[in-house]
Amino acid sequence: MARKAFRGDLVWTERPGDFRFLEDGFLVISDNVIESVSERAPDDAEILDFRGRIIIPGLYDIHMHAPQYMFAGLYMDEELLTWLDHHTFPSEARFSDISFAEKAYGRFVEDLKNSVTARASIFGTIHTDSTLLLMSLLEEAGLPCFVGKVSMDRNSPPDLSENTENAVEEELRFLKETSRFTLEKPIVTPRFIPSCTDDLMRNLSDIAREENLPVQSHLDENQSEVEWVKELCPWSRSYADAYDKLGLLSGKTIMAHCVWVNDEEMELLKERGAWVAHSPSSNMNLSSGVAPVRKFLDMGINTGLATDVAGGSSLSLFRMMTDAITSSKLRWRLQDSSLRPLVFSEAFYLASRGGGSFFGKMGSFEPGFAADILVLEDTSVSTVLHDELSLPERLEYYAYRTPDRRPVAKFVDGRRII
Amino acid sequence: MARKAFRGDLVWTERPGDFRFLEDGFLVISDNVIESVSERAPDDAEILDFRGRIIIPGLYDIHMHAPQYMFAGLYMDEELLTWLDHHTFPSEARFSDISFAEKAYGRFVEDLKNSVTARASIFGTIHTDSTLLLMSLLEEAGLPCFVGKVSMDRNSPPDLSENTENAVEEELRFLKETSRFTLEKPIVTPRFIPSCTDDLMRNLSDIAREENLPVQSHLDENQSEVEWVKELCPWSRSYADAYDKLGLLSGKTIMAHCVWVNDEEMELLKERGAWVAHSPSSNMNLSSGVAPVRKFLDMGINTGLATDVAGGSSLSLFRMMTDAITSSKLRWRLQDSSLRPLVFSEAFYLASRGGGSFFGKMGSFEPGFAADILVLEDTSVSTVLHDELSLPERLEYYAYRTPDRRPVAKFVDGRRII
Repeated sequence: MARKAFRGDLVWTERPGDFRFLEDGFLVISDNVIESVSERAPDDAEILDFRGRIIIPGLYDIHMHAPQYMFAGLYMDEELLTWLDHHTFPSEARFSDISFAEKAYGRFVEDLKNSVTARASIFGTIHTDSTLLLMSLLEEAGLPCFVGKVSMDRNSPPDLSENTENAVEEELRFLKETSRFTLEKPIVTPRFIPSCTDDLMRNLSDIAREENLPVQSHLDENQSEVEWVKELCPWSRSYADAYDKLGLLSGKTIMAHCVWVNDEEMELLKERGAWVAHSPSSNMNLSSGVAPVRKFLDMGINTGLATDVAGGSSLSLFRMMTDAITSSKLRWRLQDSSLRPLVFSEAFYLASRGGGSFFGKMGSFEPGFAADILVLEDTSVSTVLHDELSLPERLEYYAYRTPDRRPVAKFVDGRRII
Repeated sequence: MARKAFRGDLVWTERPGDFRFLEDGFLVISDNVIESVSERAPDDAEILDFRGRIIIPGLYDIHMHAPQYMFAGLYMDEELLTWLDHHTFPSEARFSDISFAEKAYGRFVEDLKNSVTARASIFGTIHTDSTLLLMSLLEEAGLPCFVGKVSMDRNSPPDLSENTENAVEEELRFLKETSRFTLEKPIVTPRFIPSCTDDLMRNLSDIAREENLPVQSHLDENQSEVEWVKELCPWSRSYADAYDKLGLLSGKTIMAHCVWVNDEEMELLKERGAWVAHSPSSNMNLSSGVAPVRKFLDMGINTGLATDVAGGSSLSLFRMMTDAITSSKLRWRLQDSSLRPLVFSEAFYLASRGGGSFFGKMGSFEPGFAADILVLEDTSVSTVLHDELSLPERLEYYAYRTPDRRPVAKFVDGRRII
């Protein structure tokens, strides 16, 4: 494939806390992979002219629930466990109806396509066919995602519960059916320990190992949940240890939240190379608390940002950046002054290269990275100070002020999506 | 003047925690004052047909800095006192240039007009002429506001400092000049105790008393600031007591923030009938903390919401509602579990009737209240569940998901502004 060069104002991060940027530069891609960043136009490349616009790498949402999108921004006056019982479980049960799923997932995928998210790791529901439908819609939209059929065989309402055997069979059917997709990949998705028997967990762990599949679940979101897991798994040293002993914690695992994770659990996450999906908006909305992200960064634990729709009420990873910052400030002020707040460049790193690494070499303009590219128009919505701002400042302004604005162009693996 | 009836989906609150609503109802106004809410069309009224749209009372922003709007969403990686020195004071100094002020205030007023704010209480800068220009622009836009020329005669950079005598003279000139406005009203505006000598404060207090003017300032925003005020006012029992002893705390005073207010100070605020401008977004952005709003409500302290642009990065009072809720949740979880989080109806009350009461009988659809009315279009941006939602749920969804959306119509005192 021919080389292409994106002309515009380039900003990216290669490590936390450090912006790289080039005004009116050229981002050269070849074979849908980043080749270089250059001050001059390459000779033999097709030029895509986005002068005056901000060009950043793709952003990655590493934890979200597609069936919950329809009530993102509703029922926010409750905590996690009652919110699950009163709203989330009854809503998810509706996805047994494939025509309802078509309507709800149709809107979800349309909005995700128009968002700043390039790729995501997504929970469906226990319903295999609805989840496959979701994958078809994502494939059609050109968004390469990990999607999981959710497994749950205990402590769940009757219309949202499987028996263990059935859960395993359906998981296998799901995996088989997903072989028809080009862009979409399956991910093993036990909801969380309270919803899954040890037996189911061990079966899923075997499947993930045999098929070399990634895994996603929830860890240490809420204090009551942590207490509950202690009762459910008296044989474990901790919630993270329980996942580990069940064979589900590896370098291909995403654990959402990790708000109340203790030192030993952090060491374990680090050792296994697992990813933390930091979900600041959700953790505030559901009164869960604030994860010690500064510590994750200091320890080198793999960390990305996540909307956790519908605990999070926004689809925007820009909003997640600013929520990550503000919640880290309150954590610093109210809970632990030893962990200084995140700054904008760090939050941007988490949403781009941080979470992107779960998908491969993604979320940066370094050579060899996937050509996931977002183009943002900021002049029409800018401040009167626009002409005085540095490129990172323009990006900060955009993130705080217009987080939901549709990008003017989005490329994934070099393909134009919008 | 003839009677008018607004037809649409009416929602409002008359007290914290309790929504009133009527689908496809009629809001009848007469002489620019609310007359009644009715299920049937009145016989002799002109009908304004907003069927299918949400109709709510005006929302009120009781603390913001117009000159800072240009950098709302920038420089958010610092705390209050360094943020003031590095960004706020140098930016405000630029308003000595009236042509710069025209450009910056022009954008501010345009954006405020298109926002959900009906009226606001606003800080200008120390510059009398720029502040008068701001008032002209607000008057032209039809937004009735309280606007203050800021007074500061100590601990301020040379280009943003007055001597005491000059500050008093300029305040008097400012007040005299404001008599030309119909909608705009002046408000006495000592920046905060660290910026104003006791002598200046006493002069301003005398002026406010003699001219029967309201007062606005800052109180207990940040712990370092509180310590500083202790040093500056060794003769006071507390920061609030210092304002009180200087004659500046009354039933016509707005005190912004009140994050670190102690019990005695709360009693004093209550006793004097002063208003608290709760600024949740700003208090998170500047790592200040979270005000004990639940306590203010329980004690019956007058409280409204405020963007505190540019500590707050958003102009939207819907965003302030959801920030007030999320920050109260973290305060409850991390700081004081005795003060339960705010719920949406309470946050809505604070932004409407709560803050509105500072301006008079405003922010509700009760008879005799000013005809400040907002019309919101939510169907085109709604969830697939739209048809199943109650009216307060539709409003909650709108607040969380589209806080910056332009209202389709805005009426202030019955006059259509947009």
